[in-house]
Amino acid sequence: MRLVTYRSGPAAAGRLGALVGDLVIDIEALGAAYEIELPNDMLTFIDLGPAALDTTRQLIEDSEGEFPVGTAFYASNVKLLAPIPRPRKNIFGIGLNYVEHVAESARSLDTSKDLPKQPVIFSKPPTAVCGPGDAIEHNAKITQQLDWEVELAVIMGRKAKRVEEADALDYVFGYTVLIDFSARDCRRAGQWIVSKGQDTYAPMGPCIVTADEVPNPHDLDLWLTVNGVTKQSSNTKHMLFKVPTLISDISQGMTLEPGDIIATGTPDGVGAGRSPQEWLWPGDVVEAGVDGLGKLRHPIVAV
Amino acid sequence: MRLVTYRSGPAAAGRLGALVGDLVIDIEALGAAYEIELPNDMLTFIDLGPAALDTTRQLIEDSEGEFPVGTAFYASNVKLLAPIPRPRKNIFGIGLNYVEHVAESARSLDTSKDLPKQPVIFSKPPTAVCGPGDAIEHNAKITQQLDWEVELAVIMGRKAKRVEEADALDYVFGYTVLIDFSARDCRRAGQWIVSKGQDTYAPMGPCIVTADEVPNPHDLDLWLTVNGVTKQSSNTKHMLFKVPTLISDISQGMTLEPGDIIATGTPDGVGAGRSPQEWLWPGDVVEAGVDGLGKLRHPIVAV
Repeated sequence: MRLVTYRSGPAAAGRLGALVGDLVIDIEALGAAYEIELPNDMLTFIDLGPAALDTTRQLIEDSEGEFPVGTAFYASNVKLLAPIPRPRKNIFGIGLNYVEHVAESARSLDTSKDLPKQPVIFSKPPTAVCGPGDAIEHNAKITQQLDWEVELAVIMGRKAKRVEEADALDYVFGYTVLIDFSARDCRRAGQWIVSKGQDTYAPMGPCIVTADEVPNPHDLDLWLTVNGVTKQSSNTKHMLFKVPTLISDISQGMTLEPGDIIATGTPDGVGAGRSPQEWLWPGDVVEAGVDGLGKLRHPIVAV
Repeated sequence: MRLVTYRSGPAAAGRLGALVGDLVIDIEALGAAYEIELPNDMLTFIDLGPAALDTTRQLIEDSEGEFPVGTAFYASNVKLLAPIPRPRKNIFGIGLNYVEHVAESARSLDTSKDLPKQPVIFSKPPTAVCGPGDAIEHNAKITQQLDWEVELAVIMGRKAKRVEEADALDYVFGYTVLIDFSARDCRRAGQWIVSKGQDTYAPMGPCIVTADEVPNPHDLDLWLTVNGVTKQSSNTKHMLFKVPTLISDISQGMTLEPGDIIATGTPDGVGAGRSPQEWLWPGDVVEAGVDGLGKLRHPIVAV
């Protein structure tokens, strides 16, 4: 299933929906039409586990494309928000997780040329999240080196502490696209949170594709363009630490919870690694996608 | 006022209280006794702003020590939790924010001997929080270098984006004590979140002292002992970047929200900086306090 958080008018609150063809189906309303209680937000839906997912899937199948009045909207008529507009905690980001990106970073930034022996973990606050199409803030007082990073993001489905790699994928709810915007000149004594954590620096979406529809998260093409020119083009098979390793590793010391987000790192082709280096400026447009998950499009806007 | 989150029995949920002498006054119950609606949790109380604070203060004063039945408990009969048991986001930590600590870190860790030109910001996930007296997890499979850091923590009272230093203290709700436990051997490519973010690595409390009772947050003694031996003893006047600078700096790019926590850094005397180096082991007991705010006591326990 392809799950979204959508808004049907400028003043409306975000609601949980499912993408079916060119429609967004409101999940709470669909349930209500059959006297079944389903939630209206993504985090509660994830908390409810497989029963909510199975019930929703069944209701959609049973509808055979004929949805009760008031439960379906044309996708083009609603605004998609980030599938999880407000995560319950920081996003976990993984640095230096594609071999070629380790090399370009060592050439252009302050990182080692050696492949990391363990996942390099950093965080982005929940306030960094924005939704499909939203403007990315460019504050020239803070940065002159705003950069792009397309990433596959993992959405956790269950609480996880000290999970074995062999079991780790059982804890995944689904996947989405995340752009890890990074102000390279805002690193401080090696710490990345100001670089990567600013408001709007974590656009996510357009939907969460549930794990059952992503049989292999390590065989997905991912790409990013700036003003239509391809800058990143790779495949998740080139990840240094794969999703089960990341979940197992993080959960050894830090409890992962339903709805938690792990941004799994970016391939090569970032602006810092190019010669000459390239940065984003107001007026630029970044598009990025992961095959099968959808794509994002974001203008850079001066603030 | 000295605000706590407390639990009156093992199965009870955390509730908002005020420390008055040797009593904990339940704020929701106190309000109800006078037909005034007050919340039962700290984050909602902070969201409500000065009106809730003023009302509560007035009710306590008017009681003149005679509290209605069911509104007061002996503090020794209840369990104090972290004042904010579950923050809404990561804690913002400040590294290298006391001059002598910068020097000891440069000698013993991988940081620069130069004073940072801007605050060095890192994060601890909300799952790192635990309450007064709680066991600190020592997982020997992950760390052989568990270290201590006593800190003054700032609790934000209002949403803050691009706040000027001159106005920054208006955004503070109050202050508490936080120990920034740090597994020195869990730093990865310079990133500190695994080092500082593990479950139980952010004990907080025992209470939040509201800002009106802390006229100068930069003249507070702070100290830490291990098994009764003093390891850290300093004063917040030695902070390199003071609280207004920290709030202004973080809020330039990252929106701060009510209930957000900024741990303002630790003075010298950490285990990594000693010769020979000292680390915490199961059976050790760490006590730490900030003058006027109270103290914490935590056993280190093998997991």
